[in-house]
Amino acid sequence: MRYELYYWPTIQGRGEFARLVLEEAAADYVDVGREAGPGQGDSALERVLARGAKGRRPFALPALKAGSLVISQTANILLYLARHHDLGPDEEATGHWALGLQLTLADWVTEVHDTHHPIAGSLYYADQRTEARRRARHFLAERLPLFLGYFETVLEHNPDGPDHLVGKRLTYVDLSLFQVLAGLRYAFPHAMRESESVHPRLGRLFDAVARRPRIAAYLASPRRLPFNQDGIFRHYPELDLPAS
Amino acid sequence: MRYELYYWPTIQGRGEFARLVLEEAAADYVDVGREAGPGQGDSALERVLARGAKGRRPFALPALKAGSLVISQTANILLYLARHHDLGPDEEATGHWALGLQLTLADWVTEVHDTHHPIAGSLYYADQRTEARRRARHFLAERLPLFLGYFETVLEHNPDGPDHLVGKRLTYVDLSLFQVLAGLRYAFPHAMRESESVHPRLGRLFDAVARRPRIAAYLASPRRLPFNQDGIFRHYPELDLPAS
Repeated sequence: MRYELYYWPTIQGRGEFARLVLEEAAADYVDVGREAGPGQGDSALERVLARGAKGRRPFALPALKAGSLVISQTANILLYLARHHDLGPDEEATGHWALGLQLTLADWVTEVHDTHHPIAGSLYYADQRTEARRRARHFLAERLPLFLGYFETVLEHNPDGPDHLVGKRLTYVDLSLFQVLAGLRYAFPHAMRESESVHPRLGRLFDAVARRPRIAAYLASPRRLPFNQDGIFRHYPELDLPAS
Repeated sequence: MRYELYYWPTIQGRGEFARLVLEEAAADYVDVGREAGPGQGDSALERVLARGAKGRRPFALPALKAGSLVISQTANILLYLARHHDLGPDEEATGHWALGLQLTLADWVTEVHDTHHPIAGSLYYADQRTEARRRARHFLAERLPLFLGYFETVLEHNPDGPDHLVGKRLTYVDLSLFQVLAGLRYAFPHAMRESESVHPRLGRLFDAVARRPRIAAYLASPRRLPFNQDGIFRHYPELDLPAS
């Protein structure tokens, strides 16, 4: 089966979490927004948002079409892909542990987004810059260390060793953590540099994921869009303050 | 098995989504924060946050203890409870549709929270009131109609009829939508009153859930905390502006 991934063609955004799993699984997929040809990608995205499949319409993108199924919400897409491509835990208890971590990553991503858009997604950054500075200051001082510290201790306390968040082999949650760390390093290089030495396990997981053959090939390919100032992770130097 | 629900004892908050499912399932559960006795509830909550079970520590509450399992993140808890108490869809495709809706509700709840806390959860409302007015104005004008309209059309297009979001019988997603609507009516009575006539199916679902015998009994009991100014849904008249 050839999957169809529906996501905005010019940003990594939340679609990137799905792309990483599809790439690691070597799954057959079309990135519809990017590959449908000039002008056609956008209308395909609008069509899936307007109609979905069998009256099941996503509220937002990303969405994954798998046969007659349209699945939306990032964690939900990953859950499906992980189950079908052996990139999640097998047993129920560990599955819930992994999903809890993934949803915590999703919350973290939303908080990162809101550092540059604390008032409204419909406004430009320039129109909420004052509020963004204030929100980013609190995010870097309070939330970033809390999230980083949490995932560092999850690795530390994994009874199967600190190479993975869950169990002894790669799961979709490791791929998502890699992406969040990549985004944070782009958006907040100053604040993140300060944190590297205190969170060695996060850095090692990041490196190990980046070295996986399929992920390395993907990151080096034109399929991997660069981070930019339209996505979730944006680099505005005035927001990247020291954490203290 | 007696479940243990871990959540802050003085607010409905995100714990309420779990409580509604537990009540509808007539499940045996202890609301640890509220029932552990004076002073003991809080330390039990801190203990689960600090230790979890077998090194699996929740990032935040609510958390549900089910035997040796500690499950965190609201949608994850509901997924577990729905599966074990027959309050979710049976087949995989419909399960993903339901989870996608639940995660959309979760995003909506986060946006509601941020109308009164657009800068930081660590600050008082009074310290971010100016930003809150701005964010709430955008939320009511742009986001609230979008979410309400979306769930209205989900009901409208359910091939099994508009009484439920998914399929032909009650699922956990209906209970969560009920709770979001209840919270919005409390927080934004003015804005919500305007919307009632254009979203008749939402109102009918709300009424039908409130009339279910176990839910009605729960809502009338002291176990149902009233909405208040510490939870996610707060009523600040200055934020409850007309949507136009």
